[in-house]
Amino acid sequence: MPYRAPVSEFSFLLDKVIGFKAVQETERFAEASPDMVSAVLTEAGRMCDEVMAPLQRNGDLHPAVLENGVVRSSKGYDEGYKAIAEGGWVAITADPEHGGMGLPLTVATAVNEMMSGACLSLQLNPLLTQGQIEALEHHASDEMKALYLPKLISGEWSGTMNLTEPQAGSDVGALSSKAEPNGDGTYAITGQKIYISWGDSDLVENVCHLVLARLPDAAPGTKGISLFMVPKFLPDEAGNPGVANTLKVVSLEHKMGLHGSPTCVMSYEGATGWIVGEPGGGMKAMFTMMNNARLGVGGQGVGAAEGAYQHALAFANERKQGKNPHDTIIGHADVRRMLATMKAEILAARAIALDCAVSIDMGRATGAPEWTARAAFLTPIAKAFGTDIGCEVSEMGVQVHGGMGYVEESGAAQFYRDVRVTAIYEGTNGIQAMDMVGRKLMDGGEAATRLLDEIEAEAEAAKGTMPELAGAVWEAAETLRETTEWLVAQAMPARFGTAVPYLRAFARVLGGHYHLRAAMADPDGSHGKLARFYITRLLPEHAGLLAHVRSDDSDLMDISPDDLAA
Amino acid sequence: MPYRAPVSEFSFLLDKVIGFKAVQETERFAEASPDMVSAVLTEAGRMCDEVMAPLQRNGDLHPAVLENGVVRSSKGYDEGYKAIAEGGWVAITADPEHGGMGLPLTVATAVNEMMSGACLSLQLNPLLTQGQIEALEHHASDEMKALYLPKLISGEWSGTMNLTEPQAGSDVGALSSKAEPNGDGTYAITGQKIYISWGDSDLVENVCHLVLARLPDAAPGTKGISLFMVPKFLPDEAGNPGVANTLKVVSLEHKMGLHGSPTCVMSYEGATGWIVGEPGGGMKAMFTMMNNARLGVGGQGVGAAEGAYQHALAFANERKQGKNPHDTIIGHADVRRMLATMKAEILAARAIALDCAVSIDMGRATGAPEWTARAAFLTPIAKAFGTDIGCEVSEMGVQVHGGMGYVEESGAAQFYRDVRVTAIYEGTNGIQAMDMVGRKLMDGGEAATRLLDEIEAEAEAAKGTMPELAGAVWEAAETLRETTEWLVAQAMPARFGTAVPYLRAFARVLGGHYHLRAAMADPDGSHGKLARFYITRLLPEHAGLLAHVRSDDSDLMDISPDDLAA
Repeated sequence: MPYRAPVSEFSFLLDKVIGFKAVQETERFAEASPDMVSAVLTEAGRMCDEVMAPLQRNGDLHPAVLENGVVRSSKGYDEGYKAIAEGGWVAITADPEHGGMGLPLTVATAVNEMMSGACLSLQLNPLLTQGQIEALEHHASDEMKALYLPKLISGEWSGTMNLTEPQAGSDVGALSSKAEPNGDGTYAITGQKIYISWGDSDLVENVCHLVLARLPDAAPGTKGISLFMVPKFLPDEAGNPGVANTLKVVSLEHKMGLHGSPTCVMSYEGATGWIVGEPGGGMKAMFTMMNNARLGVGGQGVGAAEGAYQHALAFANERKQGKNPHDTIIGHADVRRMLATMKAEILAARAIALDCAVSIDMGRATGAPEWTARAAFLTPIAKAFGTDIGCEVSEMGVQVHGGMGYVEESGAAQFYRDVRVTAIYEGTNGIQAMDMVGRKLMDGGEAATRLLDEIEAEAEAAKGTMPELAGAVWEAAETLRETTEWLVAQAMPARFGTAVPYLRAFARVLGGHYHLRAAMADPDGSHGKLARFYITRLLPEHAGLLAHVRSDDSDLMDISPDDLAA
Repeated sequence: MPYRAPVSEFSFLLDKVIGFKAVQETERFAEASPDMVSAVLTEAGRMCDEVMAPLQRNGDLHPAVLENGVVRSSKGYDEGYKAIAEGGWVAITADPEHGGMGLPLTVATAVNEMMSGACLSLQLNPLLTQGQIEALEHHASDEMKALYLPKLISGEWSGTMNLTEPQAGSDVGALSSKAEPNGDGTYAITGQKIYISWGDSDLVENVCHLVLARLPDAAPGTKGISLFMVPKFLPDEAGNPGVANTLKVVSLEHKMGLHGSPTCVMSYEGATGWIVGEPGGGMKAMFTMMNNARLGVGGQGVGAAEGAYQHALAFANERKQGKNPHDTIIGHADVRRMLATMKAEILAARAIALDCAVSIDMGRATGAPEWTARAAFLTPIAKAFGTDIGCEVSEMGVQVHGGMGYVEESGAAQFYRDVRVTAIYEGTNGIQAMDMVGRKLMDGGEAATRLLDEIEAEAEAAKGTMPELAGAVWEAAETLRETTEWLVAQAMPARFGTAVPYLRAFARVLGGHYHLRAAMADPDGSHGKLARFYITRLLPEHAGLLAHVRSDDSDLMDISPDDLAA
């Protein structure tokens, strides 16, 4: 069944739910007029539908392979990548000075999600390049920018992130790759990196690796980590790929899914690298890249959910069952419940991602720290909830298919397998939740409180029109506020044991907020009906989650490893 | 990491939580003394640990294949199957007259679960044979019993269930396979059946297919369906496999997991069959088989969860991370939360399955309709909750592994992929929930109410010792009672839209009940700690689910296919 990028839904959300107008009214993004944004979304959507979506199954049926040390991409991915690069979709937000479109991240978030829904494994490639462009724009020297940015933005070259090592996963500070000065301003990078998505490909002339490594005598932990640009081919005088660098792809991981995306074990063997930013500033630079990558991965989850949803909806409309020969399973209440849940969850997760992007855009455009704090608070929610929903919706997509869902030919299983990694990479969803209750509540809950104020104010305003729905959202926000205040008063370690249910509860309440807005804008249409479904049926989950959060934490660590083994 | 069958946990549950003693005190099961049951569980556990568990990866790495029309089983499965057959583990409950052990189903439920945890795809084979034995014991002629039962019970032959056809899945009544009388008391069976697990194998001398088909001029729908025994090889005079029947395996499905279990498309081409039971009595006979198979599949979910849990626990104990070189990730609160959740959910689901089995045993031993009704009510919960927990626990197992969880070599992904089908086959979990709110509440909620009375009485009794936990369980049961009364007053179609959350809420409350009992028996041990975790953190989920149930159903079907496509 063909994927159709949800262009009109994005337009609705931008106009009516997310307050994108505020971004368009800034000086920085003045060019992003409604007409222009609409044209961009339409064109990107067409590329997703026509070029990318037909490739989705290819990644699974013809996985990327390592041949003679070089990654050969899945069948047809070269054409897909070409369309992405030539359409300018790699670098929607990048600086026009180097060839980017200079558009708001909100627009990029929508386009990235559409590309994810069409072909997740291929979309991961430009998503990583986007992160690299971002990191270079903020931290690279002018010379490095001039050399790399035009190539990355045009899609001629692609970018990767090299953090993880076998002994250093979520604990990045444990990494041991080394960078020795060569005396000519360059460094010799040595070490092994794992889980490097698109660590090589035949889609581009050059692959640019951003690698975290330690300078000699660097401090232990994260403070001693620096960032290096280590290209597959060393640029020659003219800036074209020259001599091969001393790095290689050792192997590809054999994964549960996302087979179109080669996950590489990389070996750097005295490879030539250039430092990006200051010595010891590697984590800071990487975080620039990672924050937006986290939002991007959240969008991957939403995109995959949309793909899985459309797939299941088509099946439910076609699969005959019942007394009347025209009856299909969409007439069954339980199937309807699943589909409505899927669609309602997608709206919630999508709106969170877009709102997070709006906050980032506003932070950039206005410099106001409130916007930046709002974005920082929403980022882990967008990542974790977006990818959780990706997993859950694709799980329901399998269930809607019944027995066919377990058979690979139906395609439902691929969504389920592919999206699962998004809850793990770019910081596991547990790490996101700990970031939220740790770093993101360090302001004493200010950013959280401001969001809750927004939600309650909106609900107050809606009470006249939709008393029941608005009342439920207001109540939920108030319960969340009380728990947030309680949580802020707890010591840090105690917060971590209930971080995941807290994040989920916050996402649930935010979902109610966006659904209420959608209902106010489209009370008698599908958005109004779906909002009613979400608010009366799914929003109540928040209460159980918050009860979980407020349970005494002592019982958790009291369950010892011995108890767990009993 | 090696699987260890949780033998002592089963002993604890049987003795302290499930009231298995009542079964042992019946005349019918007088031989199932504590010592005898303990010896059986220990021996079965050893077979699971030593013979079956080492084969689990083989099913994934060396899937069953179809070669020259015959299924060749996964590497080593012949040895595993031999151990199952020779140990008598195919037919723990079967009539001793034909070679069975004649033990309670409760014991079989424990053994089946251990086998599922050790090697799910292989265990499915004897599970299906068990269902066939059950159906033949109840519905076959004495002649057929004498011919087939000894072979099935000994494991020399295996059994399958043939319901589904391409156009008839959950809607069994739509099946169109035909059975024409041959004039000699046999029938010529013609039709195609799909999703036939273990439809063929090289593990046994003969494969006995129970096939649903229609006699000429049969009524439409389920009433016109009869059941036939259609063996792969027609038994000769001596009862040994003789001439090949005119049936064949057309192909094997290419599934997301459970690759060790061949899922066959079967073609019957005028194959010789013998009727089982009365003409038109096929569904009744099949339900005998399916009810216990549903409990068995629920146990598969729990077993897979136990396997995934042990796998994740071992990883968490080994995976180093943190400042101290001996620190492992089990020290992280969020990892501890996941592991505690997994273990607590397993206890809940396992206890539900065992309690359902106790009810079936008591119904058989005493003939009291209350026990039979209790069993009937618990069966869909055992199936759906057990398999949902299988999916959720294996999902957390992947997450505990972080990036490694997505790499197949870790084995975490296999649990996740393998168990997924259990929520689909033997009646999807949506079908189970509809059975529960439909057929199983047709008594006006009597069986449900009796269970809630039990829960509340236990909670009352525990209030003196554990006021907080007992109070929470009592309150939850009372809320569930109110919603059950409300639900019973609703018209049938309106119930179906919220059947799934209702089933889940009931399972949640039952879980609280069993955890409370476990805590009363082991207040300062691991059970007491885990009960506290479950009751304070997981039980509160019931409130949101019940709010979902009580939402006005009109909003659901009001969301039209057009709204869903918008």
